[in-house]
Amino acid sequence: MGRSKERKEVSELSNQVPKAVISRLSLYLRELQRIQRTGQETVSSTQLGMFLGFTDAQVRKDLAYFGQFGYPGIGYRCDELIQAIREILGTSQPWHVALIGLGNLGRALLGYRGFRTQGFSIVATFDIDESVIGSEIEGVPVHHLDQLKAVVTREQIRLAMLAVPAQAAQAVTRQIIEAGIDGILNFAPVTVTMPENVSVVGVDLAIELEQLTFSVLRQR
Amino acid sequence: MGRSKERKEVSELSNQVPKAVISRLSLYLRELQRIQRTGQETVSSTQLGMFLGFTDAQVRKDLAYFGQFGYPGIGYRCDELIQAIREILGTSQPWHVALIGLGNLGRALLGYRGFRTQGFSIVATFDIDESVIGSEIEGVPVHHLDQLKAVVTREQIRLAMLAVPAQAAQAVTRQIIEAGIDGILNFAPVTVTMPENVSVVGVDLAIELEQLTFSVLRQR
Repeated sequence: MGRSKERKEVSELSNQVPKAVISRLSLYLRELQRIQRTGQETVSSTQLGMFLGFTDAQVRKDLAYFGQFGYPGIGYRCDELIQAIREILGTSQPWHVALIGLGNLGRALLGYRGFRTQGFSIVATFDIDESVIGSEIEGVPVHHLDQLKAVVTREQIRLAMLAVPAQAAQAVTRQIIEAGIDGILNFAPVTVTMPENVSVVGVDLAIELEQLTFSVLRQR
Repeated sequence: MGRSKERKEVSELSNQVPKAVISRLSLYLRELQRIQRTGQETVSSTQLGMFLGFTDAQVRKDLAYFGQFGYPGIGYRCDELIQAIREILGTSQPWHVALIGLGNLGRALLGYRGFRTQGFSIVATFDIDESVIGSEIEGVPVHHLDQLKAVVTREQIRLAMLAVPAQAAQAVTRQIIEAGIDGILNFAPVTVTMPENVSVVGVDLAIELEQLTFSVLRQR
């Protein structure tokens, strides 16, 4: 990271960057990874935005929140920009994740390959169903929920994915907080309340469908 | 819709509304539904934004893309704004959805209650595993993928959720397009290429986790 002087300190960025820009960073990262797999070493802002449907100006403006990444006449170096975005998003370091709830959704998340390729390892799962506790699913041990705090401490787990039924979500959230987890990805179809020092991102799959119907109705 | 003169025609809106605004509409809709369930009939822009972490100015600006919804001194009428947002998003009409792929993720999606409450009905599922074809899962019939076009036509299905393994995604996508589907929600961890008259929304669950790490690293 020899060009770090031109970059803004990550810690300065906290609140002034719009959330939408942060989610576009993830899209740029995926697209850069895809381009890099084709063997291409550099990319222009036009090409980076093209597949995603963003203009080159949008791409440059989004990245400008975080510093200067391009080279005149060259564009961006894929490996350098990938590394920079991973540092901004926090995924240049590996994250240990706990998965809570082993119904169909939990099992689907456990088998989802897209997490590991982006630096997330589900290292422990938790349930209250005695018939699975003590076993391994997809190579990951299943613990009783009562063991959450002990395992979180031992395995240095900072994130939890919550895939329990709606009626259990708030109670389990309390246990997650007591276990010292810093961030929760909530798949339960309810809003959970949280102290300020714990981040939550709620995943509402119907939102994606609504974006789709909006766009389907406007085709031609 | 007695106030329709003040509203913009939905068909005029297509491209000039930023995508981020459309996804915030879904959030406003959920929050309005939550507030309405508490028995409250009207809501201010401040209250509507509060739980979601948006300022009142943001709420008003977002809604202004679509018309004038508030009443001076009253705020928004929940039922009216819910109905207006559902019309904009296209979910004031019911949608029939086909689910393709009945692995863990497909089964999780089939059991996900959040779709039906927002107007989406999974009316048919498709797989190539002979051991499940002809059965019903969660009350929904399982067809062979070869039957896609016939069932899509008969059941007036316009949307498909794609939950097949990555290596099958592009081939299945071709079948979906041939079947006359208008929009695809792609859960397969790959980008699928598509003709222009078919909309695709890709669901990349790692993006949500990256948003979480960004925010975890900036707590306090």
